[in-house]
This record gives sequence, C-alpha cells and structure tokens, in this order.
Amino acid sequence: MTTEAPASGHTPDLLRRLARIEGQVRGLARMVEDGSYCIDTLTQVAATSRALQSFALELLDRHMATCLVAAARTGGDEQEVKLREAADAIARLVRS
Amino acid sequence: MTTEAPASGHTPDLLRRLARIEGQVRGLARMVEDGSYCIDTLTQVAATSRALQSFALELLDRHMATCLVAAARTGGDEQEVKLREAADAIARLVRS
Amino acid sequence: MTTEAPASGHTPDLLRRLARIEGQVRGLARMVEDGSYCIDTLTQVAATSRALQSFALELLDRHMATCLVAAARTGGDEQEVKLREAADAIARLVRS
Amino acid sequence: MTTEAPASGHTPDLLRRLARIEGQVRGLARMVEDGSYCIDTLTQVAATSRALQSFALELLDRHMATCLVAAARTGGDEQEVKLREAADAIARLVRS
Repeated sequence: MTTEAPASGHTPDLLRRLARIEGQVRGLARMVEDGSYCIDTLTQVAATSRALQSFALELLDRHMATCLVAAARTGGDEQEVKLREAADAIARLVRS
Repeated sequence: MTTEAPASGHTPDLLRRLARIEGQVRGLARMVEDGSYCIDTLTQVAATSRALQSFALELLDRHMATCLVAAARTGGDEQEVKLREAADAIARLVRS
Repeated sequence: MTTEAPASGHTPDLLRRLARIEGQVRGLARMVEDGSYCIDTLTQVAATSRALQSFALELLDRHMATCLVAAARTGGDEQEVKLREAADAIARLVRS
Repeated sequence: MTTEAPASGHTPDLLRRLARIEGQVRGLARMVEDGSYCIDTLTQVAATSRALQSFALELLDRHMATCLVAAARTGGDEQEVKLREAADAIARLVRS
C-alpha cells in the first residue's frame, strides 16, 4: 500500500510550515538579486535547512504514530515492509 | 564591511537553482494536500535538502574564491575577521 | 522501563563495528602526530563520521524492530513514551 | 604539495580531543556489551558525532588560516588547487 488517508487535522499546520519555507527560499532569491553579503545569505540558508529538517521530523513522527504502529499490530510482512521503509527514510534524512 | 558587489556573471545560475528549490517546496505542499504517502514526501524533502545544501556550498565556494582570497592578501584584521566569519558559516552548515 | 535484554545475536556485529571505528580514531591521532596534510586527515574524519552514523542507524533499526514494535502492540502510555523517545533520538541524529 | 609542517603548538590540543573521542567510542562498546538501553546508547553516539565534527571544524579552521591564506598570497594554480581542495573537504563534512 503506497497511499494513506491524509491526517486531515494535521494538514493545515504542515502546509503553514511549507508556506513559511517557500517564503524563506524567496527571501534567499531576493538576497542574491540584491547582492547581499554571502555570509548573511549563508546564515539564511542554514535557517531554511533547519526549517525543512523540522518539517521532515514532524512528518516522520506522524508516520510512525499512525502507519508504523498499525503495521506493528498487523505484524508479518506488512510490519517488515513498513519498518524497512521507515529505516530507509530515516537514513536518507540523517545523510542529507 | 557587510556588502560586496554581486558577482553578476554568477547570479543567474544561483537564481535558477533557487527557483528550482522553490518549485520543490511547492511540490511538497501539493503532496501534503493530496494526502501523498509520508515516505514518498520524505524522499522529496531529502532531495530538497540536498539541493539547498548544494546551493550553500556553491555560494561558499564563490565567497572563498573572492572575499576570502582578497582578505588573505590584505592580511591583518581584515584577514582575521573574514576567516572567523567563514569558519562560523561553515560550522552552521555542517551542524544544520 | 529503561533497560532491555541485549539482542545477544547482534552484539558481536555491533562490537566489531565499534572496534573498527576506534581504530579509525586512533588512525586520526597518528595522522595528527605525523603532521599529515590537513585535507587528508579531514577525509578520514568524514569516513569515521559516516561509520559512526551507520552504527547509529543500525542500532535504531534494531530498536524499532524490537522495542517500538512491542510498545505498539501494548498501546497506551507505553506506546506514547516509546514513540516520543524514538522521535527524539532520530531528531538528535538528524541534527548531529 | 601534500604535506605540511605540523603546527606543533596546536598538536597537543588536537590529540587530547581525539583521545577523548576514542574514550567515547570505547564507552559505546561498554554500553553495547552491558546491554544498555538503545536510546541511551544513541544519545552517546550523537555526542560522539558532535565531538568528531568539532574536531573536523577545528582542523579546517587551522588549515584555512595557514595553507589557504598562504596559497591566496601565492595566487595562480596553487591558489586554485587549495581552494578546490578546501571546497571538496567542506562538502564532504557537510554531507557526512
């Protein structure tokens, strides 16, 4: 299974976070256009990266609390597949 | 000194990269709205983080090849200040 | 509960990984003593960091496949506590 | 040129940091042997990773303040080579 019902109650908060990150990326473009000092721009890039990281961790928390818990209760192959997927997703986050 | 002339020849490439990253962030919002599978969204977050990281490394390269080299030739306080700034910026990138 | 039976079958592999990482750290000390070129030493530091990261991901996988699965089946507070702990541990890895 | 005189005055501090990191790795092995709780071990892994990262940043600072500054004053190919090397080393640290 590769789809899941949107956790509707949580969606607005996730979208607000992404709208803020999109604003940060547009702010970076303005800094480049205005010829801002590289070091100041890099400080803003680091802040944007951290915001993206927090978004990822939030999404992962929700996934573990819903899909992974459900799969653990089902057991068997479903559990194995979900554990592997989560482990791979965590490795990509840690290494990116 | 906290401004520098924009390295005009390079600006279009940096802006193209940021436009692409902004598109990736909007793509993430669409995935959340559509109730995409969390793991798929997380894969796209990791790709977006890597693109932001590459942008930061590109900006840092240019800064070192211009500002830092100029400061090293000037020497004295100017050199010390620029080395400290660059070291702090690198630490923020490594830790973010 | 803050202890768990050692997953004995897996312990030798984890200890072998750590012995290798300890060897890498001693290799770094030799490079510093011998006055090796900084860039070469930094390349070895990056390799050591990646080995440590892989060890962490391996440990986390095992934790999720055992403790977290057991907690999901128990449900209730136990599940909440284990999910929170795992999420915090993942955040520390992603941010370190 | 791939060697440089050891910055002798600084070497003892770098070696002390590495000795501490080696101790942290041995501490991790003891935790695994004792069957410590995975989450506690992961917390110590994150601390060890941060110590290794700080060591790398310290080494990079020194490299930039000595080799990179000297190369910037020499200019030409020497400068290009040293800038490329430093940029690549920073990229490896950021991505590891």
